[in-house]
Amino acid sequence: MVKLVLIRHGQSIANKENVYTGWNDAPLTELGVKQAIFAGQALAQKELEFTDIHTSVLGRAIKTANLVAEACHQLYLPLHKTWRLNERHYGALRGLNKDDTRKIYGKHQVALWRRSFYAVPPALTKPDLERRYANLDSRSIPTAESLDQALDRIMPYWQDEVAPKLLEGKNQLVVAHGSTLRALIKYLESISDEGIDGLEVENCQPIIYELDGQLKIVKKEII
Amino acid sequence: MVKLVLIRHGQSIANKENVYTGWNDAPLTELGVKQAIFAGQALAQKELEFTDIHTSVLGRAIKTANLVAEACHQLYLPLHKTWRLNERHYGALRGLNKDDTRKIYGKHQVALWRRSFYAVPPALTKPDLERRYANLDSRSIPTAESLDQALDRIMPYWQDEVAPKLLEGKNQLVVAHGSTLRALIKYLESISDEGIDGLEVENCQPIIYELDGQLKIVKKEII
Repeated sequence: MVKLVLIRHGQSIANKENVYTGWNDAPLTELGVKQAIFAGQALAQKELEFTDIHTSVLGRAIKTANLVAEACHQLYLPLHKTWRLNERHYGALRGLNKDDTRKIYGKHQVALWRRSFYAVPPALTKPDLERRYANLDSRSIPTAESLDQALDRIMPYWQDEVAPKLLEGKNQLVVAHGSTLRALIKYLESISDEGIDGLEVENCQPIIYELDGQLKIVKKEII
Repeated sequence: MVKLVLIRHGQSIANKENVYTGWNDAPLTELGVKQAIFAGQALAQKELEFTDIHTSVLGRAIKTANLVAEACHQLYLPLHKTWRLNERHYGALRGLNKDDTRKIYGKHQVALWRRSFYAVPPALTKPDLERRYANLDSRSIPTAESLDQALDRIMPYWQDEVAPKLLEGKNQLVVAHGSTLRALIKYLESISDEGIDGLEVENCQPIIYELDGQLKIVKKEII
C-alpha cells in the first residue's frame, strides 16, 4: 500500500497576525519552525520513507519541507518546488488583516471568499512579475483565485508529477498551504462543493493517506 | 558575462573535531550555520542572482545550500542534489581523527592521501548501500577515491548539468565539499597535478568566477 502524506507549513507570521498572504512570502515564526521539526520527528517515528518531496515556491512551505525532511533523516531526497502548489492567490486581500476585511467588505462577503468553493476575491490590477515566476507565461499568473481555480492549477501537477510516482508504489510527501491542501483533499476524498466549507488543515499536522492501486483512499490518519 | 559561484559547506562537527568524513553525514556546527547565512548575505550584497543551485546528497552541503539560498532571498530556486557532488570518499579513513591516522599510517603516507592527486586511501571492504544511493548501480558506489577519481565522478555532472546552463548565460551556484571543489577548481583553472597540493577551500567563503562564452575564467574573486 502506497502512502501520501500532506503537511501544511508551520505557523507563519501572517498566520499569527491573522493576515491574508496568498502568494506573498511570510516567514515562519519560532513556533512554526518547532512545529515543522516536530512533524518530521513524527514521520520518523512512523518510519515513513519517501522518494520525493513536493512543495511550492513560497518560503514558508520550502522551509517547512526542509525542516521536516531533516527531522525525518531524508534531507537527501529531491525537493520539487512548483508554483502549482502555491497558496491560493488572495488577490487584493493579501496583506490585509482578516478582521479588517470584514469591516471593509462585510462578514458575509468575507465568509464567502474564504469558504465558498467558487467565490473569487477582488483581483489585483496586474499580476506580480516576480523573478521566481520568470519561467511562466505571464498570462498564467493569477491576480486572484477561487478555491476552484486553485484546484485547477494544482491538478496538472498532481496528475503529472505526484500520481505517477504513487502508482509506481513510491511514497510521496507534499508540503503546501492551507487552501491548496483543502483543494487537494476535496479532490482526493471526493468532498462536495458545499462539504469543503467545514474542512480545516492545521499547521504541520501530517495527514497520512494509504492508497490502493487506483489511488483510492484505504486509510486516513492525522498525526 | 556569466557567473559561477562555488561555496564549501559551513563548518561541520567533523571539521571541528578534525575527523575524515567523506560520504558520512556530519551536522553543521553553530558556527557552520552562521557561516552559511553570512555567505548568503554576502551574495545578496553583490546582488547575485542564480537560476539553479547544485549540491551533494550529504546533509552538511544541503543545509548550507538552503541557508545560503534563504539569506540571498532565492530559496525558491531549484536545488539539485546529486551524489556526483559528494565529498571525496575517504574509504577506511572516514570516522578517524586526522592526527590518529598519522600515528597509524605515518605522516608521509597520510600527506600523500590528503594532498596527492592520484593517491587512493585504504578502501572499504564493500560500499555502503544506503537508501540515498538506491537509484545507483551499486558498482558505481566507491569504496575509496583519489582526488583524480573524484574529479572523474564530478565531470559528467559539470558537463551535463552545470556547463550547459552557464553557456545559456544563467548564473549557477554550486555548494559542495572541500575536496570536490578542489577537484573542480583544478579543472576550471587548469591547475597541474602537483599544483593542486597547495590549494585550500575554506568553509563558506564564496568563490565567484566570471566566465566568458567558452567558460574561460575572466575574473576570480573570493568574498
